[in-house]
Amino acid sequence: MTYKVPVRDMQFVMNDVLDFPSHYQNLPEGENATPDMVDAILEESAKFAENVLEPLNQTGDLVGCQFDEGEVTTPPGFKEAYHQYVENGWPALAASESIGGQGLPRSLNLITNEALVSSNHAWSLYATVSVGAVETILAHGAEDTLRFLPKLVEGAWAGTMCLTESHSGSDLGLLRTKAKPNGDGSYKISGSKVFISGGEHDHTDNIIHIVLARLPDAPAGVKGISLFIIPKFKVNSDGSLGDKNGVSCGSIEEKMGIHGNVTCVMNFDEAEGYLIGAPHKGMSCMFTFINESRLLVSQHAQGHIEASFQNALAYAQERLQMRAPVRKLKDKSADPIIVHPDVRRMLLTQKAFSEGARMLTYYCAQQVDITHSQGSVEEKHNAETQLALLTPIAKGFISEVSQEATGYGVQILGGHGFICESGQEQHCRDTRITTIYEGTTGIQGLDLLGRKILLSGGEVMQPFVQKIQAFCAQNVGNNLVAQLERSLYKLLELTDVIAGKADKNPDEVNAVGVDYLMFAGYTFMAYFWARAALVAENTINEGSEDIDFYQAKLATAKFYFSKLLPRTATLELTIKAGAEDLMRIDDDAFSF
Amino acid sequence: MTYKVPVRDMQFVMNDVLDFPSHYQNLPEGENATPDMVDAILEESAKFAENVLEPLNQTGDLVGCQFDEGEVTTPPGFKEAYHQYVENGWPALAASESIGGQGLPRSLNLITNEALVSSNHAWSLYATVSVGAVETILAHGAEDTLRFLPKLVEGAWAGTMCLTESHSGSDLGLLRTKAKPNGDGSYKISGSKVFISGGEHDHTDNIIHIVLARLPDAPAGVKGISLFIIPKFKVNSDGSLGDKNGVSCGSIEEKMGIHGNVTCVMNFDEAEGYLIGAPHKGMSCMFTFINESRLLVSQHAQGHIEASFQNALAYAQERLQMRAPVRKLKDKSADPIIVHPDVRRMLLTQKAFSEGARMLTYYCAQQVDITHSQGSVEEKHNAETQLALLTPIAKGFISEVSQEATGYGVQILGGHGFICESGQEQHCRDTRITTIYEGTTGIQGLDLLGRKILLSGGEVMQPFVQKIQAFCAQNVGNNLVAQLERSLYKLLELTDVIAGKADKNPDEVNAVGVDYLMFAGYTFMAYFWARAALVAENTINEGSEDIDFYQAKLATAKFYFSKLLPRTATLELTIKAGAEDLMRIDDDAFSF
Repeated sequence: MTYKVPVRDMQFVMNDVLDFPSHYQNLPEGENATPDMVDAILEESAKFAENVLEPLNQTGDLVGCQFDEGEVTTPPGFKEAYHQYVENGWPALAASESIGGQGLPRSLNLITNEALVSSNHAWSLYATVSVGAVETILAHGAEDTLRFLPKLVEGAWAGTMCLTESHSGSDLGLLRTKAKPNGDGSYKISGSKVFISGGEHDHTDNIIHIVLARLPDAPAGVKGISLFIIPKFKVNSDGSLGDKNGVSCGSIEEKMGIHGNVTCVMNFDEAEGYLIGAPHKGMSCMFTFINESRLLVSQHAQGHIEASFQNALAYAQERLQMRAPVRKLKDKSADPIIVHPDVRRMLLTQKAFSEGARMLTYYCAQQVDITHSQGSVEEKHNAETQLALLTPIAKGFISEVSQEATGYGVQILGGHGFICESGQEQHCRDTRITTIYEGTTGIQGLDLLGRKILLSGGEVMQPFVQKIQAFCAQNVGNNLVAQLERSLYKLLELTDVIAGKADKNPDEVNAVGVDYLMFAGYTFMAYFWARAALVAENTINEGSEDIDFYQAKLATAKFYFSKLLPRTATLELTIKAGAEDLMRIDDDAFSF
Repeated sequence: MTYKVPVRDMQFVMNDVLDFPSHYQNLPEGENATPDMVDAILEESAKFAENVLEPLNQTGDLVGCQFDEGEVTTPPGFKEAYHQYVENGWPALAASESIGGQGLPRSLNLITNEALVSSNHAWSLYATVSVGAVETILAHGAEDTLRFLPKLVEGAWAGTMCLTESHSGSDLGLLRTKAKPNGDGSYKISGSKVFISGGEHDHTDNIIHIVLARLPDAPAGVKGISLFIIPKFKVNSDGSLGDKNGVSCGSIEEKMGIHGNVTCVMNFDEAEGYLIGAPHKGMSCMFTFINESRLLVSQHAQGHIEASFQNALAYAQERLQMRAPVRKLKDKSADPIIVHPDVRRMLLTQKAFSEGARMLTYYCAQQVDITHSQGSVEEKHNAETQLALLTPIAKGFISEVSQEATGYGVQILGGHGFICESGQEQHCRDTRITTIYEGTTGIQGLDLLGRKILLSGGEVMQPFVQKIQAFCAQNVGNNLVAQLERSLYKLLELTDVIAGKADKNPDEVNAVGVDYLMFAGYTFMAYFWARAALVAENTINEGSEDIDFYQAKLATAKFYFSKLLPRTATLELTIKAGAEDLMRIDDDAFSF
C-alpha cells in the first residue's frame, strides 16, 4: 500500500480552482479558516490518516467485527484510533462554538473526510455518522434534546441513523416501528431496524440513535413518520448517564466489504425516546441527516478511487512487462507498464474521476457552508437550490464511476490485483456499498429528475446552469469550453424531451432517471475540468515553477473531454429510447 | 439462492437459433449427439449442478482452501463431488473414443460447463482445466506422452497449466523456469510458477502439470520457450504411478473470489518432465490450451451473469416496495419492484447479456467442433479463422459486461445484495477474475486488433463478417437488422481508420484495442440477438403454444438494440480520439 493523502491536489482544488480563501473570508465562521490554518488542518489530518488509520485498514477487513450476546467488538486498534481522534478534537472541528465546537466552516469536515475514507473507510463511518446526528438535532430538536449535543460534538458519544426495516428500504412509507406517548413528553418506541452502521460498539459510553417511527394516530405512508432520539443509555437532565434503555443489537451482518464497520439489526423494545421536530414531519427532518450523508457518500466513493489510483500508479511505474514501441529502459528486458497506452487509459480514468469528483464535492461543500452562513436569504436560497440539484448527482454519479475506477485498480495489477495482499480488491468491495446506502442510484435518479427537476419545472437547475453558461460565455474560443457548452445544451434539450414524454407516461421518469443523472454528472464534471484546465493553462503561461503539476492537470482535463465525456453520446440515445423497451415483458412472464 | 439450470433457454439457442441438430448431423462424431441424447445430457448436467454443486458453493466461498506443509485441503464436499463427477463419466464426455472418451462433440463440453460455473465456479475449475491439458497433449505430444491421457480423460488424474511467474505475467517472454535435457529424452525442470489453479489438491492420485520453460540454448523472449509435461508423481511405462517428482506447492493465495479453487505457488526442483512439441515452439503449442481456456472463461463470465440474473429476478418478483404508476397489487401496500422501469432496466441488461453471451459462446463451440472434424480443409480453415476472431472477443467482451451485470445483481437487491447471505456479492467477486486470467482484456484487445486483424490486413474478419452481411441481405426491411448493418458498417470503417493511424503511430493499437474489442462485441452480439428476434417472430407467427417465451425473447432483443447497442456511439468517439490524449503526461510526472 502506498497511500499518501494528496494534500497538494486538495490545495489545487481549494486554492486554484474554487478559491476557498475568498469563500472563507466571506463567511462569518470563516475568519478562523485562514489559509495557514487550512493547510495545518490538511497536514494534521493527513498524518492521522497515514499513520493511524491506514495501518488498521487491512486487518480491519480481515478480522471484521465480532458479535457476542449483544456486544460488538470492532477490529484491533479501531477503538484506540477513535479515542485518539477524539483527543485530537476532530469531531468538534466544524461544529458551532455555541455547542462546544471549534466553529470552523462545515466544508472542512467534508474536505478532511477524504483522507479518512481513502485510508480506512470502515473506520471513518464510526466518526462521521455522528456529525449528521448533531446537525439533525441542531436543526429540528426541541430545547430538551439539546442536552445530547455536547457529548456528541465532543465525540464522547456516537450517533447513528435508523431508517431501514427489513421490509422497508427505498420505500420508507412502509415502516412499522411504533412510538407511543408516555404523557411526559417522552415516547415508548418498539420495532426493529436493519442495516444500522455503528448501531452497537464499545468506542463510546453512549450511542444516540436517530430513529424513524410512527405515532399511534399517524397517517399511512411517508406522511405519517416521526423522528425520535433514542439513546442507548438514558441521559439525566444534568447530562449524566442514566439507566440502560430498551435498545439492543440483535445480530450483525456478514457483508461484501467495509468489514470493519459493524452493520447491526437494532431492536427497540419500549425504548424511551424523544421527538425531534413536529409529529408526522419526521421525513423532512430526516432529510437534514440524509442530505448530509449523501454528500459524505460521494466522498466515500471518491476516496476509494484516489487510493486505488495511487496504488495502481505505483505498480504501473515499477512493474516491468513488455516493450513500449520505443524502448524506455534499454538495459532491462522490459519497460514499466505505464508506457502502455491501455494501462494509461485506465490510470487516467481513475485520475480524472478522482480529481473531478473532488472538485464536485468541494464545490458542494462550499454551498453547505453558505446555507449555514449568516448571508442573505437570496444567497442561501441559491446555495440550497444548487445543493438540491447537485447532491443526488454527486452521490449517484460518483458512486457509479467509483465501481468502474476501482475495477481498473484491480485490472492494472492483473492477477496481483485479485490477491488480497495488494489491497486493490478491498477498494472494490468497500466502495460497492456507495451505490446503495443513503439511497440507491435509482432513488437518486428519481429524486433528481422527478422530485427536483420536473416538479420544479426545471427551476432547480437554473442557478448552477447559469453559472456554467456564464463561465462558457467568458471563455469563448476555448476548445474544451465549447465541448462543455454543447454538452450542457444537450442536457437541457433532453430535460425538455423527458418532460414532454413524462406528461403522457409516468414510467418515463424512472426509466431514464439513472441515465439522465449520469448525463448530468458527466456534463457537470466537465465544467470543473474545464475550470481546472483554464487555471492550469494560465498558471503555466505565467511561468509556474511547478510546471509538471499543471501540465498533468491540463492533460487530465483533455483526457476527460476526449475519452470520458463522450459517454453522453450513448446516454442521449438511451434517454431518447425511453421506457418503451423496458416494459414489454409482463412481470410474470419474465423467466428463465 | 434460486438457481435453476436454464435448460429451455439452452435448447432455444441450440435448436431454434443455431440449429445444432443439423450441425451435429454434419459431424462424424456428431452421430451420437442426437437431439434426445443432447436433451438427456443437459438434464443430467442440470441435476448434478443443482443438487450437488450449488449446495457447496457458499460454504466453498466461506471456508476456502487450507494449506498445511505443502498439502492442500479443498472445501467440504468438493472432493466427493469431484469423484461423483468422474463416476458419472463427465470428464470423458467429449474426448475421442480412441483415448477412452465417449466421442461426443467438443461443443458439449462447453455447453454443459455453463451449469457448473453458475452453480459453483470455483469447483468447476478443478474439472475443466484437465480438458485443455488433454487437448494440448493430444495435439502436440509425442508417442511416449500419450500414456498420460487415459487417466486424464477418465478424470482419475487432474491437469493444470503453468505459465505465469511472479515477474512474468502478460509478458511470458520474460519467464525464467529452466529445463535441462537428461539425455534419455526426459528433462530436469527448475523454477517457480505462480497463480496455478488447482496446482495441488487431494482430489486425484496424480496431477499433470503443463509447464512453460526454457531450454539451455533457448533464444531470449517468447521464441525461446518450450512446453513440458511434469507429473506430480512420475508415471511408469505401464501407466502405473512411480516416485514422487520434484514438484511442490509453496503456498496458496488469499483472493477476492473463487475461494474454493486453490491458487498455488508451484515449485519445480529438478522435476522430471517431458517435452511437448518441438524445442522453442512451446508458445504455439500452449495456444491450444490457452484458446480452449479463453472460451471457457467467456462462459465463466456468462454463467455468473445468468445465476445473478435468476436470483435478482426472483427477488424483484417478490420484494414489495413502492407503487407502480398503476397499482398492481391493490390489496397490498406496495408493488413488487419488477414493476419499476429502472429495476427492469437492470434485469433486462442481465438477461440480454447472459443470453446474448450464450449465443456467442455456443456459436464458437460449433466452430471448435468443425476444427476437429473430418470436414474439408476449407471448412476447417473457415472455422479456425472465425475462432481466431471471436475467441478474444468472447473472452474480453463477455468478461467485461459480466462485471457490470453481476453488479446489477447486487444493486437490484439493494442493501440485501451487499450481504453475503444473498449470494449476489459472491458472483461479483468470483467473476472479477474473468477479465484477468487467460489474458487481461488489454491483452485480448491487442490480440484481436494487432495480432489478428491488422496483421492479416483484415482478412481474419472476412468469414464472420460475410456471414453477418449475408444475414442482413436476407432480411432487408427488418428494423433490428438495419441497425445491425449500420453497426457492422461502422466497425469496418473504424478498422480502416485505425489501420491508417497505426501505420504512423504504433501506440494507436494498444490505445484503442479494448474500445475496439468492445465495439466488435456489441455488434456481434447484436447479430445473434437479431437472429433470435427473427426466430422468435417467426415462431410466434406460426402460432407457437409457448408464446410468452418467444415474446420475451423478442422483447429482450428490442431492449438490446435500443439500450445496449447504442454504447457503440461512445466507443466510436473514443476510438477516433485515439492515442493522443493518453500519452501527454510523462511517465514519471504522473503523480498525486
